[in-house]
Amino acid sequence: MLYQHGTLGTLIAGMLQGTTSIGEVTKHGDFGIGTLDGSDGEVVILDGNAYHANAQGEFKALTGEELTPFATVTDFQTDETINVRHITDAEALLAQTKRRAASDNIFFAVKMTGKFEMMHVRMMPKEEPPYRRLSEVAKNQPEFTREQVEGTIVGFYAPQLFHGIAAGGYHLHFVDDDRTFGGHVLDFEMNSGTIEINNIDTLQQHLPSNDAQFMGADIDYSNIAQEISETE
Amino acid sequence: MLYQHGTLGTLIAGMLQGTTSIGEVTKHGDFGIGTLDGSDGEVVILDGNAYHANAQGEFKALTGEELTPFATVTDFQTDETINVRHITDAEALLAQTKRRAASDNIFFAVKMTGKFEMMHVRMMPKEEPPYRRLSEVAKNQPEFTREQVEGTIVGFYAPQLFHGIAAGGYHLHFVDDDRTFGGHVLDFEMNSGTIEINNIDTLQQHLPSNDAQFMGADIDYSNIAQEISETE
Ligand SMILES: [Zn+2]
Ligand SMILES: [Zn+2]
Repeated sequence: MLYQHGTLGTLIAGMLQGTTSIGEVTKHGDFGIGTLDGSDGEVVILDGNAYHANAQGEFKALTGEELTPFATVTDFQTDETINVRHITDAEALLAQTKRRAASDNIFFAVKMTGKFEMMHVRMMPKEEPPYRRLSEVAKNQPEFTREQVEGTIVGFYAPQLFHGIAAGGYHLHFVDDDRTFGGHVLDFEMNSGTIEINNIDTLQQHLPSNDAQFMGADIDYSNIAQEISETE
Repeated sequence: MLYQHGTLGTLIAGMLQGTTSIGEVTKHGDFGIGTLDGSDGEVVILDGNAYHANAQGEFKALTGEELTPFATVTDFQTDETINVRHITDAEALLAQTKRRAASDNIFFAVKMTGKFEMMHVRMMPKEEPPYRRLSEVAKNQPEFTREQVEGTIVGFYAPQLFHGIAAGGYHLHFVDDDRTFGGHVLDFEMNSGTIEINNIDTLQQHLPSNDAQFMGADIDYSNIAQEISETE
């Protein structure tokens, strides 16, 4: 079971206000990704602990009380394991991972643990109200690159039909072993380690019905597929 | 909670084989809609009982053993009730219903019970393998109109962002009180009765991971939004 609070489409459309707590989200899974109120940075949830990388390059553990407009989690269970033995680029590893997953037509969670020759991440800057569409916010997002870093990529693959609710294809975040660095993964090279796959055939999609702003909004989704592709 | 087995997009793309039983679906809700193996006709589930209207105009109760590629159910609970006192057309009633629902941005189930001046339905014809895309099948679908019929419209509203997984907007089926007539609603006029609304903020979307054909398929969703709009 994949649990998602909010949708990527609604976030992209500029509904950036936090609508549930990280602690509420982690009740539904110990492994996942998200952002905070105001599309503030990148959340990574690993082994039930939530971390946050902001646009200033700061990294910290979350208490669970922080609010989020969008988060996706699962209770990670390993269905398949791939061993990585040589320096390999992201494109090749992600293609291999997709071939080893049960299908392109269901969801899967992916956990990539080991040494990374290079890790290139971005962090979404926090917006203040009135919020712009995320495709505007994303035009100025800090990027960071680390070399020779150990850590874990935490993420999900969503079938193309779900592009809009999530990002069709991969959506990956990173946290290093020292818990001092992370973010939304743009590119990487992995030296060695393991890739674990958790096949998932059920999405529990929760919408923020307690949020008056969301409930009353006239949301423009007319170009949302392209906006997601440009932003993510 | 709305429970859905399969997606409308996958059905439209021609994956028409039944992948779970009606009895399995009704474990998740006593109220809903669907179709049978081969996109055979229109299923209506009301008070936990499942009925089927086929393209020959036949109507019968289902046993629960029949297979379905696509079905949507909920345990219906009434949040709002609208009384209908004058003959009113579908467009006006559905607009009024949407205004009384909690939001356009979450799901709701709608149950419209009473006397109908006119009920215009269609039934999807059963396809035999190799299946065509449903937009092709739908070009020849029998339509039936009844006047002065008592019964219940069973259906759902899905937010526009979910167009692809479901039909964005309304998707309505009908069953008459005598359990002799029903189908996928194209148009109606309602004389009198009640409209009940059940607001729903969570979709549990189940994909047919037990179906090798679905899991292995290279599904073409490139034009799916328009195909759904044309077919439904
Ligand atoms: Zn991200
Ligand atoms: Zn229908």
